[in-house]
Amino acid sequence: MQALIFDLDGTLVDTVYAHVFSWQRALAESGMNIEGWQIHRKIGMSGGLFTRAVARELNRELSLQEVEKLQDRHSELFDQLLPERKPLHGAVELLKYLKDEKITFGIATSGRRPDINASLNVLGVGDDVVVIERGNVLRAKPEPDLFLACQQKMNVRVEDCYVVGDAVWDLLAARRADMLSIGLLSGGYGEDELSRAGAYRVYRDPMELLNSLDELGVLP
Amino acid sequence: MQALIFDLDGTLVDTVYAHVFSWQRALAESGMNIEGWQIHRKIGMSGGLFTRAVARELNRELSLQEVEKLQDRHSELFDQLLPERKPLHGAVELLKYLKDEKITFGIATSGRRPDINASLNVLGVGDDVVVIERGNVLRAKPEPDLFLACQQKMNVRVEDCYVVGDAVWDLLAARRADMLSIGLLSGGYGEDELSRAGAYRVYRDPMELLNSLDELGVLP
Repeated sequence: MQALIFDLDGTLVDTVYAHVFSWQRALAESGMNIEGWQIHRKIGMSGGLFTRAVARELNRELSLQEVEKLQDRHSELFDQLLPERKPLHGAVELLKYLKDEKITFGIATSGRRPDINASLNVLGVGDDVVVIERGNVLRAKPEPDLFLACQQKMNVRVEDCYVVGDAVWDLLAARRADMLSIGLLSGGYGEDELSRAGAYRVYRDPMELLNSLDELGVLP
Repeated sequence: MQALIFDLDGTLVDTVYAHVFSWQRALAESGMNIEGWQIHRKIGMSGGLFTRAVARELNRELSLQEVEKLQDRHSELFDQLLPERKPLHGAVELLKYLKDEKITFGIATSGRRPDINASLNVLGVGDDVVVIERGNVLRAKPEPDLFLACQQKMNVRVEDCYVVGDAVWDLLAARRADMLSIGLLSGGYGEDELSRAGAYRVYRDPMELLNSLDELGVLP
């Protein structure tokens, strides 16, 4: 294996619970009451798909304008709840190791700029790292477009890529991109959910992944 | 089976994500940085055990006074984050059904009064329902004391009780009380985590439990 493609929220930065909570509040303000655990299990899809999925469950139809308004309100509440992003255990060390050892890696996220900028900053990700965000592709996870765009921009082969993610949407999109995948528990899914969704291995967090690169065949 | 003993947070009211977030912030204010998913997997223990577990992971020792200060700060932040409690899908209907059909039930929670009062109110739980809270027993979950106190106060036999909970701590405490248990996904644990911890059945939420009482042998 020659390259790693990382999801961002819940995989490298500790943001999942703030996302759940700010989505829940944004939706409730628009009269859509949905429970925390159901939001949690949907996070990682594109925001557009996510809001439509929620609306469908509540038998409502949302216009494109309403979807955008919800996304903006979510971003606003998220920034209030979590003004300071925190890297997950080992995330900074993992990316530094990959860089130092010249192992190819990139980031592919359903999030958007400028929302994701603070997370990239705290991880020390600069302009030299390939970052594919929602705005760069037509369709976000669970479509494979984000991962395929990242792989193409990194100029590696599909079969040489591991996708690393915390949500079943990452693992589903990885399968559809024909890539192997690795699950992390740091987004709050259970181990079995990630294994069943196709994760080749499941680790606690980026630190355990860093210490397990040998058993994945990722070698300098 | 003749009686049901319910956990409260994540089982009957949608409060788990607010608890995670307010614990995370209270701990961070005291210099203890711990990730959302790790808090999530510890919630449901008693607050005292929980704070000590967190401190131990961070190689710190907390005095009783520090533990109490953290718990107070958590309650304060929790109330700010979630001024209004929401019952989980089917919770009110389930309790009403049990009451109407004269099926014995009670609530046994690691939470404390007055913190839990708003949750009990929104569920329509009055003085006629047995409620055992943290202050009524010496040791909270995963010790079996809360469930045993509830069973004794309901005046039923241990072998006639189902414990209903969303966290592995409920299921662990149920086993230690020698009671069967039922897991609910509404606290954000995965199905397999709950099954492995000993849940006899796992349902989505209180509504699915209500519709499945027949297959549990809980009959009017």
